[in-house]
Amino acid sequence: MANSKYEYVKSFERCQPDILLPNTWIAIRIDGRGFHKLTAKYAFEKPNDRRALDLMNAAAVAVMKELPDLVLAYGISDEYSFIFHKDCMLFERRAAKLITTVATTFTSYYVHLWPTYFPTCPLTPPMPSFDGRAVMYPSVQNLRDYMSWRQVDCHINNLYNTTFWALIQHGGMDGTTAERELAGTLSKDKNEILFSRFGINYNDEPAIYKKGSVLFRDYELEPPSRSDASPAFAVEGGGDGGLSAPVSKTAKEKERKRRSKATIAVEHVDLIRDEFWVKRPWILSGRAGKLRE
Amino acid sequence: MANSKYEYVKSFERCQPDILLPNTWIAIRIDGRGFHKLTAKYAFEKPNDRRALDLMNAAAVAVMKELPDLVLAYGISDEYSFIFHKDCMLFERRAAKLITTVATTFTSYYVHLWPTYFPTCPLTPPMPSFDGRAVMYPSVQNLRDYMSWRQVDCHINNLYNTTFWALIQHGGMDGTTAERELAGTLSKDKNEILFSRFGINYNDEPAIYKKGSVLFRDYELEPPSRSDASPAFAVEGGGDGGLSAPVSKTAKEKERKRRSKATIAVEHVDLIRDEFWVKRPWILSGRAGKLRE
Amino acid sequence: MANSKYEYVKSFERCQPDILLPNTWIAIRIDGRGFHKLTAKYAFEKPNDRRALDLMNAAAVAVMKELPDLVLAYGISDEYSFIFHKDCMLFERRAAKLITTVATTFTSYYVHLWPTYFPTCPLTPPMPSFDGRAVMYPSVQNLRDYMSWRQVDCHINNLYNTTFWALIQHGGMDGTTAERELAGTLSKDKNEILFSRFGINYNDEPAIYKKGSVLFRDYELEPPSRSDASPAFAVEGGGDGGLSAPVSKTAKEKERKRRSKATIAVEHVDLIRDEFWVKRPWILSGRAGKLRE
Amino acid sequence: MANSKYEYVKSFERCQPDILLPNTWIAIRIDGRGFHKLTAKYAFEKPNDRRALDLMNAAAVAVMKELPDLVLAYGISDEYSFIFHKDCMLFERRAAKLITTVATTFTSYYVHLWPTYFPTCPLTPPMPSFDGRAVMYPSVQNLRDYMSWRQVDCHINNLYNTTFWALIQHGGMDGTTAERELAGTLSKDKNEILFSRFGINYNDEPAIYKKGSVLFRDYELEPPSRSDASPAFAVEGGGDGGLSAPVSKTAKEKERKRRSKATIAVEHVDLIRDEFWVKRPWILSGRAGKLRE
Repeated sequence: MANSKYEYVKSFERCQPDILLPNTWIAIRIDGRGFHKLTAKYAFEKPNDRRALDLMNAAAVAVMKELPDLVLAYGISDEYSFIFHKDCMLFERRAAKLITTVATTFTSYYVHLWPTYFPTCPLTPPMPSFDGRAVMYPSVQNLRDYMSWRQVDCHINNLYNTTFWALIQHGGMDGTTAERELAGTLSKDKNEILFSRFGINYNDEPAIYKKGSVLFRDYELEPPSRSDASPAFAVEGGGDGGLSAPVSKTAKEKERKRRSKATIAVEHVDLIRDEFWVKRPWILSGRAGKLRE
Repeated sequence: MANSKYEYVKSFERCQPDILLPNTWIAIRIDGRGFHKLTAKYAFEKPNDRRALDLMNAAAVAVMKELPDLVLAYGISDEYSFIFHKDCMLFERRAAKLITTVATTFTSYYVHLWPTYFPTCPLTPPMPSFDGRAVMYPSVQNLRDYMSWRQVDCHINNLYNTTFWALIQHGGMDGTTAERELAGTLSKDKNEILFSRFGINYNDEPAIYKKGSVLFRDYELEPPSRSDASPAFAVEGGGDGGLSAPVSKTAKEKERKRRSKATIAVEHVDLIRDEFWVKRPWILSGRAGKLRE
Repeated sequence: MANSKYEYVKSFERCQPDILLPNTWIAIRIDGRGFHKLTAKYAFEKPNDRRALDLMNAAAVAVMKELPDLVLAYGISDEYSFIFHKDCMLFERRAAKLITTVATTFTSYYVHLWPTYFPTCPLTPPMPSFDGRAVMYPSVQNLRDYMSWRQVDCHINNLYNTTFWALIQHGGMDGTTAERELAGTLSKDKNEILFSRFGINYNDEPAIYKKGSVLFRDYELEPPSRSDASPAFAVEGGGDGGLSAPVSKTAKEKERKRRSKATIAVEHVDLIRDEFWVKRPWILSGRAGKLRE
Repeated sequence: MANSKYEYVKSFERCQPDILLPNTWIAIRIDGRGFHKLTAKYAFEKPNDRRALDLMNAAAVAVMKELPDLVLAYGISDEYSFIFHKDCMLFERRAAKLITTVATTFTSYYVHLWPTYFPTCPLTPPMPSFDGRAVMYPSVQNLRDYMSWRQVDCHINNLYNTTFWALIQHGGMDGTTAERELAGTLSKDKNEILFSRFGINYNDEPAIYKKGSVLFRDYELEPPSRSDASPAFAVEGGGDGGLSAPVSKTAKEKERKRRSKATIAVEHVDLIRDEFWVKRPWILSGRAGKLRE
């Protein structure tokens, strides 16, 4: 064939180590690139712009729908984490392919849905883009700690931002003064500032700002069960990368369909305690639950 | 700090080997995901849809403009390769960041510019997405062989497709018959079929279909020069990952600006022979040329 | 400093992705290089040379003693697998360092101890060497399946070799004829050949040949316990890469000492069933057991 | 087959990214582990023990002989760097295999040859071991800078050590005082101390201490040639990872034999200037030179 002379260059592609370790949870995290400028350009509301968050969530819901292998997603600000189950074999677990598929699908919907959420300010170049990375977590505990880390980050950032912008918007400070005011303060100090100076009870703030957004397939909830036996704690959910009861191809296809049909729930709930995981055992088991009627 | 308990999960991020080897050329290649369906859905013309190629090129031009570190890009069909110079240190050469930035920026513009090229058929979900990968090439020869490989591929595919669709559109065959007709044929056989049966001289086909699209910064052309000393052949262009004459920060900034200002040329020319590279020494040297007036 | 001009080359070292994922079991497997020639040169007995296996085991015991982080080792023929606990942080889990330390320590003792096991045939160049690799296993099940895989391999190879060499040594066949005789036979066929033709009951063969050699630190055995709660099955033993009860530095040092003091047991036992693991919970927990008096 | 149930664990081995990029120079550097203790245990002479260096060199010569793909080696103190040509395809360029083969072969000879160099103090456990790593260098310049870096390091360390031990052995200082004396001194200060206080002209010290040991295959020297065209500078020597004139299998085998036959030279010469490389073009070309009679 005419092109054989050059094809040796393909051998260079094998050198990017790319297969993610089997039997590990895969977190793909994407981040808005230079969103500081973007929020200024489109005059996002401070400290939180509800339309911007709704747009992020809508794009993430679309990603979940297009990739039924995803079991969970979590978004805060301009960042989103998408979780593939540890048994997932999509794209043979090739990292570059998983990252770019998630990131470009998200971007595609973000641009497409923009007019729905910002009907009066059309997107113009420079266009939004996102960078992404893949991280592997071997155990359920590691995965839950990752989610907890992000949610704690959400809380810390939002409490800070809420107080910072209250000082500016209601307290008449400039940014530098507000920053100085908050330097070294603890959570309780910020709560106190909000309440005593501005009559804001942080607990009453919308959950979407305080907790971020949790996306999962919406099967029938199960009653919280005997915690010890639950996959949220000890037993690794689902297969174990090889020796679990073999699943037939048709069974797999059925599963896949059931997952595709499930609607994607968007909730603003605690991910740190056990309750979330115990009630929705299908997330860690990777098995589709019972579809809601 | 409250979140320290969970932050250990960050250490898992170090395990994705991600830094691309210094002093190697970086090719980021993106491919349309499931574009077979997309071309059907939007009724792309066969064998080539000029609007679709123009859209790909427009998105690629935007990527070149947003990332001045790119020295070259080459597109065929639903695939695009973007080349970072071997001296490029963008994002510290982290592979995931380079891949996702290129792929999502491209996607963002692809969606944004769609209505310009397909004004009568708006994009609807499922939205287009792209996967991507990074490959390193240590020498100019390897890089040029990579480009040649892609351009030979373009030629082979386009000759095949042109003949295949001629058999269907002008010869009245169905796909299966056309495929059987072409099985085992050589290039000259396909040229012969085109000419003798349909009066098509393949050489007269538009260069964009036969050669693909080459994008580069458009400085003043230099006269083809004494080939031996040229970076297209032997001497590695530009620095050598460390010991080349040190470039001051302000000089670098100036360079960067000059690159940003250059218009992006879109040409459909031969990349395999030396001429292209000899005439445009700035591509391999990585140094901005003289801006056209 | 005079050498700063060249030191940039150090940056190239970062590009070998080398940190093994935290919270995964690490198996370092080494294999004799070209041991086919070596067994011929020193006239190893067939199908098994007890001195050669004892030498392998003695070298492996020395490796276990020098690296208290190792929790288990398993040897067959000219291969040995060394297991680091999933919580092990030795050399920051850098793969190259772990592999080369295990492999060169093993080699060093292999050469040093050779005269003890082969007093009459001194080693001469070309000298023995070993290659090695590191593999990560996320779960206890994966790790146990790895060990089972190696032990099943040991069984299959040894049954084959025992029958093959019986046909030659007692049956007077040449190698080619023996090979043909065994082509397509099942385990029970080989057992039958051994018994009916040569009066050999394979079950009576020495366990070291049938089972390979298992090395572990020899604490007081515990009575096989309530299996469900045991780390051999479900609960991941020891910490979880971050959130287990924090262990103080002095406690760690104490642990380390206790491990260093334990004698290394060399046994030829079944690794596939649960019993081995249930009786020796310290292997999976990674916690030193009670030293034998 | 009986073991298929467990064999899935083999798939975990694909996840260690291991293929070194084609067309890059490979440096395998090994370092003695804990040699500080070893030098004390066997009472190595200070600042340099000639027997210890000769042993290192003898082991390295054996490695060069067993691996004809090696084109160069360089040793200082308890460290050795082995260079594979950029065209080398040994073990398909798998990093773990290359590192462990070099490191264990070296170790094997180190232990084996010890009695030749230390006839009166036999090796006893704990035995010497070495860790190793692989680094890729894309260009000749990078490779030469790596070698220069090591040789500059040799010079700096040896000048320091020579002065430090002179202060102790001839000047009667203790270690702490000598260290304090040398803090902040430049090369010329150390030269001055050596000369004015102890009558030592550093230039007269043996080259093996000042320059380290350079190993290469000893073909007939060529007259230093017109530098511009030489592979030591610009043109990448040998093939280019694909497109160089194809070499037949028999030609390759012949090459290999010629390389195996060449004696290994051990010299203590400057690697930083061009002369070394210009005179021995076969090192960078990777082509065997003319065997000495």
